[in-house]
Order: sequence, then C-alpha cells, then structure tokens
Amino acid sequence: MRKLSMDELGRKSINDFKAAEKFSLVVVLENIRSAHNVGSVFRTADAFLLQAIFTTGYTAHPPHKQVTKTALGADLTVFTKHFDNANDAILNLKNDGFKVFAAEQTVNSLKLQQLKFEREEKVAIVFGNEVTGVEQETIQLCDGCIEIPQLGMKHSLNVSVAAGIVLWEFVREKISNESN
Amino acid sequence: MRKLSMDELGRKSINDFKAAEKFSLVVVLENIRSAHNVGSVFRTADAFLLQAIFTTGYTAHPPHKQVTKTALGADLTVFTKHFDNANDAILNLKNDGFKVFAAEQTVNSLKLQQLKFEREEKVAIVFGNEVTGVEQETIQLCDGCIEIPQLGMKHSLNVSVAAGIVLWEFVREKISNESN
Repeated sequence: MRKLSMDELGRKSINDFKAAEKFSLVVVLENIRSAHNVGSVFRTADAFLLQAIFTTGYTAHPPHKQVTKTALGADLTVFTKHFDNANDAILNLKNDGFKVFAAEQTVNSLKLQQLKFEREEKVAIVFGNEVTGVEQETIQLCDGCIEIPQLGMKHSLNVSVAAGIVLWEFVREKISNESN
Repeated sequence: MRKLSMDELGRKSINDFKAAEKFSLVVVLENIRSAHNVGSVFRTADAFLLQAIFTTGYTAHPPHKQVTKTALGADLTVFTKHFDNANDAILNLKNDGFKVFAAEQTVNSLKLQQLKFEREEKVAIVFGNEVTGVEQETIQLCDGCIEIPQLGMKHSLNVSVAAGIVLWEFVREKISNESN
C-alpha cells in the first residue's frame, strides 16, 4: 500500500482544470466570517470539479491574502464571482436554470441521504454564516432546504465540513457511475 | 421553510450522548498540526454519534484550550483517548475487533463510493498530518486504504473536511436505513 507520488496523482494543471467539464453544481457562501473556511471550500470545489463558488455579503473573497493561503492554489482554478447579497446571486442562478437549495435545518428540510437529482440537473447550494446559518430571507428565495442529519449534542458542523459532506453527496453518484 | 429553533433540533444533553448507542466507528488522528482541525473533527464525531476519537503523536488533544474553543463543547461528549503513536492505537483497535483503514491515496486504495461494509462491522479510520498525510509505517499496519476521489488540481482536501466526507459515507447508510 505505497502512497502515490505527486506524479501518480494525475493532478490537473490550471489550464486543464479550466478546460475540464465541470459538474453543474455551484456553491453560494453567504456571510462566511472565516477566510480559513472559505479557503477550505475552495479546495473542496477544486477536488470535486465544481462549476463555481459565488461569494455574497461579507464573505472573504479572492483576491484575499488569507483565502489564498488556505485555498493552497484552488482559488486559481475554481471560477468565482462576488455578489453584494445572496439575493442577487440566487436570481442570477435561477435565471441560468439552477435549482437553489439552502443547507439548513428547517421545517420540511430534505434529509441529505434521501436526495434524488437528475443527472443533468443544475443545482446550487447556499451555506450560511458560521453562527447564524443561512438568513431566513435567503431561505425564502430557495427551492428547498437540505439538512445533514446530526444526532449529537451540538447540531453544528463546521461550515466547510458541512459543505464537503453535501457536495460529496452530489458528486458521489456521478463519480460512482463513471468508475464502475 | 422556517428555521428550526434550538428546542426543535432535538439536541442531546451530555448525559444523553454518553448513554446513546454509538456507531461502531472510531477516528484516529495522527500528527494533526492544527487544533482547529482537531476541534472540527470533534464536532463531526458528535454530530455522527461516533464511538471515539483516538489522538496520536503530536495531535493536539483534550484538555487543550484551542481544541475546546473550536470543538464548541463536542470535546465533552465524544469519548477520546491519546496514544503516543498510531501503532499503539491501531493495535488497541485490532485487539478490540476493528478493521483499520487509512484515508490515503495509495496503490490499490479503495474508492470511497465503492465501499461496502456489514452493518455491525467495527471500523476505524486513520487521518494523517495536513501536509504529509498518514505515515507510510502506519499505512503498513492498516487493513486497507480509503481514497476520496479528487479530480482537480490540488488533490488535497482539508483534513477535517476529508474526515467529514469519509465519516458521512459510513454513517449515511445506517441513517438512511433508519429513516426510511
């Protein structure tokens, strides 16, 4: 069980990444306080070939020294755009044919493990502030809410961990089909 | 789509958590440099009712001010034990009937989406240092390696994000069965 070398990992160059076909999946980051969390989501979006990260509100966004430091270069590959507020980002996505979901525990939120999407469906997911979550007004603009089942005392995953889990759930099926 | 209140989340007390039946899943953290990452894994382990977190090597471990700060209380619920090295932790787990896997990209590593485990199987997963990953000597002690498919330029998820994704993959099936 020898670890793979850098050469064996088959990593894409920046140009390879930009040219590659992406999953039709966009992340919206609303009022994320920590640049460390933003950088971490960039790494996930790079790993999972996401179409874009839209930052909104006071979310730290490139060019930004701390985001660049924690993104480890993924801020150079993943397409990103900043919007003053989540409303503008969501309207933009809906005009482009995306279904938009908030990652939030709400009345009638969909359990992550029960989601079913069509292969070609365009999906965007909004992740909110570390403490207060997605704003209630933003939730009202969404087509639904997605909830990661949480069984313990805290019911509060780190936002970049929550994003990783939700994005993996969407990407796993596509990857699974390809690799079987 | 009203957000759930704290009361509606059904959060467990510390005693509820300790009394609850856990998933037979243990995380081993080997030489994790950042207390922030350790705290974040504690939150995930709380959310997913994990049996334990074993810290090894120089991984920051409770009682530890920065871990406590980022764990947001999950260091009080999740059972944890420190070992001087991963070798001791893995021997302990194997003696207790656990299959032990390293989360690492190796020759013949198992793709996360292709894993199949028996419902009652006891599984431990080792996550390694943020830069160098799981030590080669530690990998040799494991029953296999698990790889999160990574398609971009970096091939390097944040370790707490990687842990969240791998742990979710194990827990999702059990949760899915329960909630259907």
